[in-house]
Amino acid sequence: MTKENKLSPKMQELVELAAELDDLGHIEAVLGWDQQINMPSGGAEERGLQSAALGRIMHEKFTTDEVGQLIADLEEEVGDLTAETDEARMVKVSKRAYEKQTKIPLPLLMEFIKTTTMAHEAWVKAKAQSDFSIFQPFLEKIVDLRQQYAALFKPYDHVYDPLLDDFEPGMKTAEVKEIFTKLRPQQVALIQAIVEIDPPENDFLKQHYKEEYQEIIGRYVITRFGYDWDRGRLDIAPHPFTTEFGLGDVRITTRYLKDDAGSALFSTMHEAGHAMYGQGISSKYNRHPLSGAASLAIHESQSRLWENLVGRSKEFWSFFYPSMQMLFPQYLGNVSQEDFYRGINRVEPSLIRVEADEATYNLHIMLRLEVEIGLMEGTINVADLPEIWNTKMEDYLGMVPPNDAQGVLQDVHWSSGMIGYFPTYALGNLASVQLWDKMLDEYPNIPDEIANGKFDTILGWMREKVHQYGSKFEPQEIMLKATGSKITPEPYMGYLKKKYGEIYQL
Amino acid sequence: MTKENKLSPKMQELVELAAELDDLGHIEAVLGWDQQINMPSGGAEERGLQSAALGRIMHEKFTTDEVGQLIADLEEEVGDLTAETDEARMVKVSKRAYEKQTKIPLPLLMEFIKTTTMAHEAWVKAKAQSDFSIFQPFLEKIVDLRQQYAALFKPYDHVYDPLLDDFEPGMKTAEVKEIFTKLRPQQVALIQAIVEIDPPENDFLKQHYKEEYQEIIGRYVITRFGYDWDRGRLDIAPHPFTTEFGLGDVRITTRYLKDDAGSALFSTMHEAGHAMYGQGISSKYNRHPLSGAASLAIHESQSRLWENLVGRSKEFWSFFYPSMQMLFPQYLGNVSQEDFYRGINRVEPSLIRVEADEATYNLHIMLRLEVEIGLMEGTINVADLPEIWNTKMEDYLGMVPPNDAQGVLQDVHWSSGMIGYFPTYALGNLASVQLWDKMLDEYPNIPDEIANGKFDTILGWMREKVHQYGSKFEPQEIMLKATGSKITPEPYMGYLKKKYGEIYQL
Repeated sequence: MTKENKLSPKMQELVELAAELDDLGHIEAVLGWDQQINMPSGGAEERGLQSAALGRIMHEKFTTDEVGQLIADLEEEVGDLTAETDEARMVKVSKRAYEKQTKIPLPLLMEFIKTTTMAHEAWVKAKAQSDFSIFQPFLEKIVDLRQQYAALFKPYDHVYDPLLDDFEPGMKTAEVKEIFTKLRPQQVALIQAIVEIDPPENDFLKQHYKEEYQEIIGRYVITRFGYDWDRGRLDIAPHPFTTEFGLGDVRITTRYLKDDAGSALFSTMHEAGHAMYGQGISSKYNRHPLSGAASLAIHESQSRLWENLVGRSKEFWSFFYPSMQMLFPQYLGNVSQEDFYRGINRVEPSLIRVEADEATYNLHIMLRLEVEIGLMEGTINVADLPEIWNTKMEDYLGMVPPNDAQGVLQDVHWSSGMIGYFPTYALGNLASVQLWDKMLDEYPNIPDEIANGKFDTILGWMREKVHQYGSKFEPQEIMLKATGSKITPEPYMGYLKKKYGEIYQL
Repeated sequence: MTKENKLSPKMQELVELAAELDDLGHIEAVLGWDQQINMPSGGAEERGLQSAALGRIMHEKFTTDEVGQLIADLEEEVGDLTAETDEARMVKVSKRAYEKQTKIPLPLLMEFIKTTTMAHEAWVKAKAQSDFSIFQPFLEKIVDLRQQYAALFKPYDHVYDPLLDDFEPGMKTAEVKEIFTKLRPQQVALIQAIVEIDPPENDFLKQHYKEEYQEIIGRYVITRFGYDWDRGRLDIAPHPFTTEFGLGDVRITTRYLKDDAGSALFSTMHEAGHAMYGQGISSKYNRHPLSGAASLAIHESQSRLWENLVGRSKEFWSFFYPSMQMLFPQYLGNVSQEDFYRGINRVEPSLIRVEADEATYNLHIMLRLEVEIGLMEGTINVADLPEIWNTKMEDYLGMVPPNDAQGVLQDVHWSSGMIGYFPTYALGNLASVQLWDKMLDEYPNIPDEIANGKFDTILGWMREKVHQYGSKFEPQEIMLKATGSKITPEPYMGYLKKKYGEIYQL
């Protein structure tokens, strides 16, 4: 690998620019973390202005003609940008970002920031009152602004492509549709088979689980996973998330529910999965054009892997269940490990995406993708959303939300303008199993290691195949290199069928 | 008062510039707060780079020729900058800051930032090992850089003036010397009289005070004082401090010592005093050229007032002592209120400034001022500092530190390049009593109010006379307006003599 001190002067200039922009991006992340974890209510207005000031500075620093010239010169210097050298990819990634950002007129960007700030407040209110009409005009404006944004990238294959590409570089709407088209009937059939059968008992999970003890096991589990506490910390937030301020400071959050033994624990594992990805990027890409993750789907593959493939496995609980019983003998002392395992893997169609189990989760995503595509194509009106949502919920999951708060208003994403984000959750699920299967081909002993509380083979494999590369490769390149195939639904469906076939004796 | 919407276009431009610089300054404060409260060790290096990036951006945004021209135009527009209109003072304060910042060559600024970053680490190590030689070369470099800095402001009356002026706008070394010259013999004589007498008992303060309960009374006390929790929060930090991210978010910190009943409580009151000043600045000066406090001495007058004049008074404890006894009956149940009051006011010459009582505190400051002036004049060599320190300690307080950690290495300030800061602590002490006396002249009922747990007259008076003005007036102007006199030692000495005369029956 080329050492930094061998870089050409112009390449060095690019690195320095990226370093400064990374510094500012990480500062922005500190502001956001503090806002969600610590900030008193009185700080909200000025915090918004502080974030906006920083956003404007970053945009101005990056979208100059000089930066454009630098990237053009470097493209000439490097030649083929698809070559697998660091230099080629540094230019490729920078060029991509530059072309995107310079296309956005500053007034449109500022209107988007202003609109989403107000829309978020409207959404909070609308959700609290379960009144879609409060949010509707803001969402209409957001859809309009996102359509204007997409139009900047014409010609495209599909109007949804430019949005999707912001979260999943290089991914096309057609690819996602193809994957989902294969996935949907199989997933629906599986669920239909499952709901015919009496579900496993899980009342013992819904007792009065002391939050302090939930934290003890959460910290213990992710410490064994390999989360590096010298470069991170765990806090409480209403909506769990992971954030990074550089390679040396990747923080996670969770929230403890008294009447749920699993919620905080699985969310802690999930966020630790994200965070170990952040901690595992090669240090040579720190403050660098190739810093950060490959995509949100790749990120989600890591969180889902630790949460589900590891954390909801039989082997995991064969190691950790005694610790869990020690902390909560009054609820679990007389529950067998097998019953506990079946309980935490109970399948239950539900209204709320973030509470969905592995078998039903992707259906929540497919619904959202169809809605988003309809909104962007103009074939769905915002005003009709509640009805469309409820119809699709009945179609996919056999349930109709009793109100919009538990229906179309449940997710925060649209209020922040994040249309195009949802598919990455399902893609991440698929990718997680695809990586998992490949890893187990190479290291069939991993289940035994898990049963002995050892996770270094897993983390080491992910570091080597995924984490270290930062954003050097596009998500599908990562998957191809690591597994020999782009993201595909078969491994995921195979996994679900096998797992639930056993649990439900299908 | 002129409304903002009546401002001239150029004045409006100045406000917008100040707003952006305030936003960036507050972001810098968020980074610093997080660094001290939350940051894992792995984040240190990048956090330093993030802060430096922000510092550079702020310097570059402010020191342009366009800003210089804007200020020059506004000076012409406004005329007399000493007029007491907002406009005149907005230009005066901006001009002062611009002239200071543009004098500093960027390379010197960057060398200062780099040197102090390394010096801080060296100081931590030197203090831990009580080995001055580790810190000596860094301090020599810092003194050199501060001399270069001062030289930028020639001609001056004294080489220490430009440094002092950074913390205490408009204050001259000669003024401070004159004040200290009057103060010193009186303060020394008082202490000499006190140490002749058997001190009050205070063993009951040094028991095992449960930290959780210390926090309860700390929060209770400052809530009654008027600290606004919707615009602040309390956290734990090794070195207590106050920081503000705007008018709506002014945070304090404290630290709990198990074997000391008073340390955390008095530090909480102290920091709340700082914070209530920050919360009390007129909202029209938010994100504005006149934002922020008048000076560090005025700031310290507020913290000392709540900590000492309120918090160590008989009346305060006549209200709060029952609460204290309720929390700690095992240690205080049989200690009378009078004995408790005498115990917390025990005078004891000591080695460490931050632990010093009211009677001895200023002597620690005088020692530091003499040393700093000597360093800047070049009459004291850094290499000789430990010896000089110890000699002066014996002279002032009759004690010789057993090692440099408890002597010359005890304070963090010099490692951060903050030479010129210490005098503001003593000036703040003097100002606090001066303001207090004036307030009691006007509202003689205040001691009764305190005894009834009411503090709104005090806070209201400070809001009106000090807080609201932000940085519109220089510190001595504030004192003149509020008390009819610039900072003077007589009220402070009168207070000490009266208080300790009673306690020690002198």
